[in-house]
Amino acid sequence: MSEPLFERVALIGIGLIGSSIAINAKKRGLARHVAIATRRPETLARAEELELGDSYHADFAEAVSGADLVILCVPVGACGAVSALIAPSLAKGAIVSDVGSVKGSVVEAMRPNLPAHVHFVPGHPIAGTEQSGPDAGFLELFENRWTILTPVEGTDEAAVQRLRAFWEGMGSMVETMTPEHHDLVLAIVSHVPHLIAFNIVGTAADLETVTQSEVIKFSASGFRDFTRIAASDPTMWRDVFLTNRDAVLEMLARFSEDLASLQRAIRWGDGDALFDLFTRTRAIRRSIIAAGQDTADADFGRQPHRRDGWNEAAGADGKIR
Amino acid sequence: MSEPLFERVALIGIGLIGSSIAINAKKRGLARHVAIATRRPETLARAEELELGDSYHADFAEAVSGADLVILCVPVGACGAVSALIAPSLAKGAIVSDVGSVKGSVVEAMRPNLPAHVHFVPGHPIAGTEQSGPDAGFLELFENRWTILTPVEGTDEAAVQRLRAFWEGMGSMVETMTPEHHDLVLAIVSHVPHLIAFNIVGTAADLETVTQSEVIKFSASGFRDFTRIAASDPTMWRDVFLTNRDAVLEMLARFSEDLASLQRAIRWGDGDALFDLFTRTRAIRRSIIAAGQDTADADFGRQPHRRDGWNEAAGADGKIR
Repeated sequence: MSEPLFERVALIGIGLIGSSIAINAKKRGLARHVAIATRRPETLARAEELELGDSYHADFAEAVSGADLVILCVPVGACGAVSALIAPSLAKGAIVSDVGSVKGSVVEAMRPNLPAHVHFVPGHPIAGTEQSGPDAGFLELFENRWTILTPVEGTDEAAVQRLRAFWEGMGSMVETMTPEHHDLVLAIVSHVPHLIAFNIVGTAADLETVTQSEVIKFSASGFRDFTRIAASDPTMWRDVFLTNRDAVLEMLARFSEDLASLQRAIRWGDGDALFDLFTRTRAIRRSIIAAGQDTADADFGRQPHRRDGWNEAAGADGKIR
Repeated sequence: MSEPLFERVALIGIGLIGSSIAINAKKRGLARHVAIATRRPETLARAEELELGDSYHADFAEAVSGADLVILCVPVGACGAVSALIAPSLAKGAIVSDVGSVKGSVVEAMRPNLPAHVHFVPGHPIAGTEQSGPDAGFLELFENRWTILTPVEGTDEAAVQRLRAFWEGMGSMVETMTPEHHDLVLAIVSHVPHLIAFNIVGTAADLETVTQSEVIKFSASGFRDFTRIAASDPTMWRDVFLTNRDAVLEMLARFSEDLASLQRAIRWGDGDALFDLFTRTRAIRRSIIAAGQDTADADFGRQPHRRDGWNEAAGADGKIR
């Protein structure tokens, strides 16, 4: 086995992303020591039970001591406070990064807190599932997925390259761009899609003419795909919308404008306008499959030819609260 | 093998739904003879190559002659014209049905054309994938999925029961309701979700600040799930929106109203309102999984633990037209 890229990687927060990084760092030999820290005692205990790291810390300062790579894997809204907390304990020359879905506000919140003797390289792996917590992580999460690094002006290029190698070591492809551009891109490919998914599920729940049981029964017709997205972590997403406000509002305005025009086409029976758009969107789907960012399998590979498990309730109570 | 439910089932149109019915009728012994008719010669030839039925007809009248069950599996907008074409050849006592995603307009278009000596029982299987054509069909498409029958007033109850048995024989669960209520339910669980998916993909394609290649590269963050839906058959969906106009516009108005209120919450930083909605939508997701209408697998069961196939391009040219 070759030398690990880092001596000690400290992960603050051990949800889906944190636990996937921990599994990768250990299994792929990217770090000699993985230190895990998280606020909730039961989550920390669970991480230890799952043997995700080498040491477990309720005290963030203790976790980052001596670490040459520190990654904040907490909701975007918590990055500022956590960076203030760990700042005095950061080793000289350490790389400090994060995995937040918004970059502008994270840079703004973390940068003033960090000492001059560390390298701050914000990051965002474009990968995830709708599940959360330390049990959700897995080795292949980042494989064939992009990670965006958004180093700010004046960042040490060697530090960026070292962090890039770490992500590539986990199977990820890496791209760099400015925090501002990142936030625009993510607003359209992620934040607004999530917002409208949350929204349609809410609209459906509030109808008087159609019952919730009907919505659930007949959800296979399109709706259920939105509910998967709308099942994503509420805290994380609240923070995303609050912190990427400007880009989200800008993209949302365009979406609403376009939707109004579609609405008009429906009202006036303009079938050609509808057909043209639907043909155009189909072509974009093909490009995504060609780019390896999804499979061409029908129905998201829900394996229609294998019935096992289809009826398994998820252990949830099944009630709408 | 017990007696088949029907002597001769005629399928007009042999796309995803038609071919799946054909496969079921034959493999599960629901019909003694399956007659397949479609307008395009190459599609008919392909159906024959795939051995989907027992006889193949370019002439719709010939296909329905002597059939005790005729199912129109054509886009909603074609149902009126097809029913006029086959009407003179329909056998006495035959059941005539369809599989269209809109029911009110189909009843309106077909009913005046049909002779009094047939039983008209409109239907709609809530099942499908984003793929189309005779190759797309498979045996399990209707299993554990709902089919809605919308018999109009005065329909012979025995005919409804016989059609119900046919769908149940294909593994489907069956519900009956009025055409009007069907159209309201489908507007919210299917038509509006599709419309907003088509719309966001269009919005993303038109941006100046974010390139199409960025949209495609980083689509794993939510966007790609919308592109799957937005890859559905353009003709079928144009017809859906043109023929279920009133219900779609009504549900769309509610969606837009709710979205405006979310937009306001983002603009004013009302995190509690966002968090409450996101928590509520997560509960609805649980109900859908508990109802067996989706799996709890992360990421739509995209099988993150098996990499094979992830990089396979779909044979498409990958270009956006």
